[in-house]
Amino acid sequence: MSLTPWRLPLARALHRNRSQPHSHYLQLATITHEGLPANRTVVFRGFWSDTDWLQFVTDSRSEKIIHIQHQPLAEACWYFTKTREQFRLAGELILITAACEDKPLQLARQAAWEKLSDSARLQFAWPSPGKPREKEKEAFTPTQPSESEPLDNFCLLLLNTKKVDWLELRGEPQNRTLYLLKGEKTWSTQLVNP
Amino acid sequence: MSLTPWRLPLARALHRNRSQPHSHYLQLATITHEGLPANRTVVFRGFWSDTDWLQFVTDSRSEKIIHIQHQPLAEACWYFTKTREQFRLAGELILITAACEDKPLQLARQAAWEKLSDSARLQFAWPSPGKPREKEKEAFTPTQPSESEPLDNFCLLLLNTKKVDWLELRGEPQNRTLYLLKGEKTWSTQLVNP
Repeated sequence: MSLTPWRLPLARALHRNRSQPHSHYLQLATITHEGLPANRTVVFRGFWSDTDWLQFVTDSRSEKIIHIQHQPLAEACWYFTKTREQFRLAGELILITAACEDKPLQLARQAAWEKLSDSARLQFAWPSPGKPREKEKEAFTPTQPSESEPLDNFCLLLLNTKKVDWLELRGEPQNRTLYLLKGEKTWSTQLVNP
Repeated sequence: MSLTPWRLPLARALHRNRSQPHSHYLQLATITHEGLPANRTVVFRGFWSDTDWLQFVTDSRSEKIIHIQHQPLAEACWYFTKTREQFRLAGELILITAACEDKPLQLARQAAWEKLSDSARLQFAWPSPGKPREKEKEAFTPTQPSESEPLDNFCLLLLNTKKVDWLELRGEPQNRTLYLLKGEKTWSTQLVNP
């Protein structure tokens, strides 16, 4: 099986920027149900199995859930600060909730929960994000959730990428490469002006 | 004149992260004319005069110009890696092209050009961004443009912010504050759950 062409430069960027914890942070843009752009930082949790689908985790109570249900198309922008390169990844988001009946996807959700740190798992037991601030400090010190039983509001979010725009600012001149999904597993690669 | 309430935490973040050149980089999400999200890294060039309008520069030949003309509403996501805090700034983009007849805005465009580095100015003389790669190396070594005469394709881009969502990941628990523009210069401030 041949590797998707943008996976190699992305793997190289992840490796070369590995000393920086924020190298796993990227910005995910979606569209609200009112048709407005929304943009927030998310954490890359690796690729799902042997696919090209990026994994993130999210809370079913967060605003972006409504956006995704209305419009699953998204664009992630991933800037690597050390090597000065940017990957723009456009594609379709797939939300895996507790109610998902697809067994492999439900197992992926379970595995993502197990891989979280204790403090990340605890945040899913916090009060509803975006609602007026809970004044009781106890609301933010709930019982530690089980490591093996995902809370119902815990979701896995997958990005099935259809287009990648890779910009290397360090080139002389800069380099920019466009990758487009042409068939099920066929990608075109084109060098374009930066 | 009272300071807009989100300007103080943003000024503090810029100060505390000043050792990192990428602290001036943020991700700007817009909507394409097909209604899809687009997201790319831009460089913050300070506030315009005594307003709360963020300044960026862009090329009239770049894709985002068409997006902005179709839908000027945008959301910027600004993550500060050292202090671990995020500002989401939603508002309206205002594009200042060479043809803009508003004198103060045209002067702002002129000033932004003059403040650019030589290498940043040179990029506006490069071949059209996003088009198939020019093979002639000379295309990327044009004559250095004048410091005082902006090239016609040079644009100033302003973000007139209407909503700010500030998240501090370092809090115990995390802190999140919402600022909403209520009148011409009146802002509401609300603490919300992270």
